[in-house]
Amino acid sequence: MSTLSPTPRTTLRRRAERGSFERSVIDAILDEALVCHVAFVHDGQPFALPTTHVRVGETLYVHGAAKGRLLGSVAGSPACVTITLLDGLVLGRSAMHHSMNYRSVVILATGREVTDRDEKLAALTALVEHVVPGRSREVRAPSEAELAATRVVAFPIDEASAKVRTGPPVDAEGDYALECWAGVVPMRLTRGEPVPDPRLHPDAAPPPAW
Amino acid sequence: MSTLSPTPRTTLRRRAERGSFERSVIDAILDEALVCHVAFVHDGQPFALPTTHVRVGETLYVHGAAKGRLLGSVAGSPACVTITLLDGLVLGRSAMHHSMNYRSVVILATGREVTDRDEKLAALTALVEHVVPGRSREVRAPSEAELAATRVVAFPIDEASAKVRTGPPVDAEGDYALECWAGVVPMRLTRGEPVPDPRLHPDAAPPPAW
Repeated sequence: MSTLSPTPRTTLRRRAERGSFERSVIDAILDEALVCHVAFVHDGQPFALPTTHVRVGETLYVHGAAKGRLLGSVAGSPACVTITLLDGLVLGRSAMHHSMNYRSVVILATGREVTDRDEKLAALTALVEHVVPGRSREVRAPSEAELAATRVVAFPIDEASAKVRTGPPVDAEGDYALECWAGVVPMRLTRGEPVPDPRLHPDAAPPPAW
Repeated sequence: MSTLSPTPRTTLRRRAERGSFERSVIDAILDEALVCHVAFVHDGQPFALPTTHVRVGETLYVHGAAKGRLLGSVAGSPACVTITLLDGLVLGRSAMHHSMNYRSVVILATGREVTDRDEKLAALTALVEHVVPGRSREVRAPSEAELAATRVVAFPIDEASAKVRTGPPVDAEGDYALECWAGVVPMRLTRGEPVPDPRLHPDAAPPPAW
């Protein structure tokens, strides 16, 4: 299936022309982002907490401490996982026509706690691979105690939509005569020079380059 | 007041040593970030939607289309505004000791729709200034029609906490003998070269540099 069906809850109310239900669009955003926000309700109060995620096929996995607030409240209840990539500052010629270029995905789903050991281990391996490709083969694998102390929750990527803004500002026609600068300042999450651990082994492998 | 009082809902359950209720810590994160996620509940379903924000004193403002889903559901109901800055990838010597360096703030608050014209205009001006300092003086100010079409919601920054992770990985003691590389890959949101609008005025001012 390459296109998700819109539901009343994922139908975009504003700027519908920016929306997409294409799996390829959704997947690319999920795969590029390193951080997501998981929203859930606890005692009538919504919470949105940041964490990292990975997509495996049509499932999004997050993990956390078995005793933590995030995942204890998430599995089995309605949740929303939102992923946002900021691509640019859109500077219009009027205050109200400033905007941002971005790519975001909203997934509405009820989380399922992953109890199958193989699926759990595969998800945790994929989480490491998502951050640094190839890394899982270089590091010590999870112990049984570590697996037990970690909760993994799976969200089906079924009820989801992407929203994307690109391009220059869209100004009021009369404002194009103004002489103030207008355009886009691109924004990008960039990696810096790796900082070795103070206790790095003297024969340590070189830092990852990717 | 320089320190917020923890409440049962903002008391950190996990990694409490990473938490802070200092206004200076919270404010610095809110002021650096360009994007927040606003979580609210609609028909029992939590949503977390990205938007931009600005802090003015002890209030956080967000804005949106008067007809949009985000702010229509937010004002007057319990909400959570979460701001997350990713600072680094923490590469431990085992899969489970991978982590991220980050700074985040969670604000629990009931949004108040801003109806006072002066406060609304000040908030919208501050939103532009937050993205590009000085910009509000160079661009056309909001018209009355634009003001009417825009909703501004204020969240008091009273019940809030910050959470910060810094530094190298914390590995299991036995893993320090492993030869795999370990350390931190710094991450930073960076600005690229400004891209002029295709319809830029021939006498346009230079792009902002900041």
